[in-house]
Amino acid sequence: MKIYFSGSISGGRDHAAIYQHMVARWQAQGHNVLSSHVADPLALESEKDRSPREVYERDTDWVKECDALIAEVSTPSLGVGYEIALAVQLGKPVLCVYRSGVQLSKMISGNSAPHLAVEAYSSEAELDEQVEVFLKELTG
Amino acid sequence: MKIYFSGSISGGRDHAAIYQHMVARWQAQGHNVLSSHVADPLALESEKDRSPREVYERDTDWVKECDALIAEVSTPSLGVGYEIALAVQLGKPVLCVYRSGVQLSKMISGNSAPHLAVEAYSSEAELDEQVEVFLKELTG
Repeated sequence: MKIYFSGSISGGRDHAAIYQHMVARWQAQGHNVLSSHVADPLALESEKDRSPREVYERDTDWVKECDALIAEVSTPSLGVGYEIALAVQLGKPVLCVYRSGVQLSKMISGNSAPHLAVEAYSSEAELDEQVEVFLKELTG
Repeated sequence: MKIYFSGSISGGRDHAAIYQHMVARWQAQGHNVLSSHVADPLALESEKDRSPREVYERDTDWVKECDALIAEVSTPSLGVGYEIALAVQLGKPVLCVYRSGVQLSKMISGNSAPHLAVEAYSSEAELDEQVEVFLKELTG
């Protein structure tokens, strides 16, 4: 399955370790993670060399191309919020996950868009399970 | 004119003083700022009592109703990113302003959506001028 992974780059890298865990796991399962660079520990540095227009065009093209978008929303981020809204608009299935206890935007936690789910996780195991369930429902 | 003002609440209140300046100015000019509560110094507190669903429904309804959306994007925010994408999708004119020097998401700085402008400001006077030009073009 083509997964678009949405996580914060400019907004802050506090949860980059969990991004890495998520993307590596899906790749090991055989999924094509279009935006796997978001999980790269050097993402902020490597993305600096790309023009804003190039990043915008590439990322919006990937959102259009994906089968599902999974966003890690523990870190506030303009890009992640934008990508979630774009995926919703395109009718893509969306899963937003965040670490229990962080203060989440009500535009996400209160979102009633169809095909959008929001889950809090307390452990890697719980997060993995939430993603499993989400992906299983898509593949039927 | 009905203006939707988009600024960070949950994502951080570092630029709340400039939100206040912006909204007070537009109200003094006779504009109807639908989301004026975002500029309230107690926004975080007053919004806590509202359910996530209520906030989501109210804010998306206001974005649909507005003549233009103006976002202050100096603080990374999921809600602000979501609202910008929603406004773009609805064909609303959008102006994103940010304080010079902050690290802005390339999904915003590189955005090529029609009717969307992005401006950096170094002073209140410069910001006021950018908004003036944007609003004048709409009423022009």
